[in-house]
Amino acid sequence: MFDKAEIAEWLKNLQTSICKSLEDIDAGAKFVSDQWLREEGGGGDTKVLSDGKVFEKAGVAFSAIHGEVPAFLKTQSEHSLTGKMGDAKSFFATGVSLVIHPQNPNVPIVHMNIRFFSTDNGIWWFGGGIDLTPIYIDKLDAKSFHSALKAVCDQYDLNYYPKFKKWADDYFYIKHRKETRGIGGIFFDTLNSNVEEEMIKLKKFWQHVGQSFIPIYSEIVNKNKNLGFTEEQKNWQLLRRGRYVEFNLVYDRGTKFGLETGGRVESILMSLPKYASWQYNVNVEPNSPEFQTLSLLKKEIDWLTI
Amino acid sequence: MFDKAEIAEWLKNLQTSICKSLEDIDAGAKFVSDQWLREEGGGGDTKVLSDGKVFEKAGVAFSAIHGEVPAFLKTQSEHSLTGKMGDAKSFFATGVSLVIHPQNPNVPIVHMNIRFFSTDNGIWWFGGGIDLTPIYIDKLDAKSFHSALKAVCDQYDLNYYPKFKKWADDYFYIKHRKETRGIGGIFFDTLNSNVEEEMIKLKKFWQHVGQSFIPIYSEIVNKNKNLGFTEEQKNWQLLRRGRYVEFNLVYDRGTKFGLETGGRVESILMSLPKYASWQYNVNVEPNSPEFQTLSLLKKEIDWLTI
Repeated sequence: MFDKAEIAEWLKNLQTSICKSLEDIDAGAKFVSDQWLREEGGGGDTKVLSDGKVFEKAGVAFSAIHGEVPAFLKTQSEHSLTGKMGDAKSFFATGVSLVIHPQNPNVPIVHMNIRFFSTDNGIWWFGGGIDLTPIYIDKLDAKSFHSALKAVCDQYDLNYYPKFKKWADDYFYIKHRKETRGIGGIFFDTLNSNVEEEMIKLKKFWQHVGQSFIPIYSEIVNKNKNLGFTEEQKNWQLLRRGRYVEFNLVYDRGTKFGLETGGRVESILMSLPKYASWQYNVNVEPNSPEFQTLSLLKKEIDWLTI
Repeated sequence: MFDKAEIAEWLKNLQTSICKSLEDIDAGAKFVSDQWLREEGGGGDTKVLSDGKVFEKAGVAFSAIHGEVPAFLKTQSEHSLTGKMGDAKSFFATGVSLVIHPQNPNVPIVHMNIRFFSTDNGIWWFGGGIDLTPIYIDKLDAKSFHSALKAVCDQYDLNYYPKFKKWADDYFYIKHRKETRGIGGIFFDTLNSNVEEEMIKLKKFWQHVGQSFIPIYSEIVNKNKNLGFTEEQKNWQLLRRGRYVEFNLVYDRGTKFGLETGGRVESILMSLPKYASWQYNVNVEPNSPEFQTLSLLKKEIDWLTI
């Protein structure tokens, strides 16, 4: 089994290092830390940067909570090779979750989450992912982004990238709009094993995903953050953020689950943008950059060869 | 039984008259009409006014649809005294629904909806309601608003106002925030009867609710639309609209039902504001107007005697 305290400590350090890097990129605003305790056990540290030069709103949350296994979890289908959820009494869950809404519509919104779950009777798993939501899809950026994720995955298992890329396509989908949230990325959950060698591999992969976030995202930010933009492009950004809100409030499992089970609302909804917009029947000119972006908000696009 | 065509015609005329009145109040922008057909039967006319002097976004939708009773409706609990849903083959549903987001934070957001549902085997019911979401709660306005609704209700049944006021309190509730959406109003559904006299009364009451919307809301708008406001108050408006989005996407049955069953997305989400905002842990000064408003976003407030 894994050392829970060590994993939580590692995540806390990852949060610190990500916030430091984002502050360096922003070169203006600083993260404000909001530490909280959970009555039933554990707590967290929600760090938010607001009104920066580069980032309009960036939230990077760490939490490590524990307590009795809730009834609804006990009746869920088995996720683990290492124990039966019905027999579990207490659980431990820790993770880092972030969403970044940049000022410049040329810089994509990004989401990263890595999480670890375990119980007193030996169940454990890793989950996580990184996905990108460009306001305007730049095919070269999309290709670099997916290539970088593939490079991380391929060091551990050649099946990971195709499997987790599909998982992201399916997960980050706004069903009622028939649109993906963005260009996807990778998404995985309930990764576990009862083979020692595989266990070590899973943990290394999972940590690698967390550590790859800053190099991958900072490259995209630095490339685009100084590009000029029009009021029209800013307006399009607000509309795309409206779609982001729709996804998070209507579909995102973490958000829905958190709100339904009385989770900490401010931490859960830290993912929502400072400003978003909705208009009736937005008029998108054929072959405009907005039109091209919409035409690429589809599942099953091979971004590596686009 | 009621004359479906006559009811739909009456609703269409109500839409026209409401839009005309709102245009008169705005004295700037006009409604744009978007007529649509539904593949399985029927259609609608979604009218939207944007970027007016008084109204930032106002949507007034009429629809009249018909077709086979969907499977999920057949298995729902019985709503009607006049037939069994399990035996119904075809349905007819018509209604007018509106949401108005004003420019000035001193003017409340308003929602009104009246709807009629019937089936081929004699099931029918009326539903509807009006509720107000002030950005800043003015107790006098709240009292006039509720008094006006009570005056309408009392002409038909003295139990209506208390019953439908409670229904609105319970319905327009943002559970995860432990806040009502606004000051409520009245909400009712599945009103039906198998007594001729009662049937006529229900229809008259229901029509009266629809007709009372303009006199009730225009009084509040005209009283407040020319009041000055600060940038801080505008910001508070955007945050309150964020809560409105949360309610509509997370809880509103019509919205959820519509999105899940492949309804017309643009018509369903016409209720969302042009601009909304979210901030982490908004700081509300004790005894500020914002604080006072939050303290009144509770169920079971007797607005008539406040």
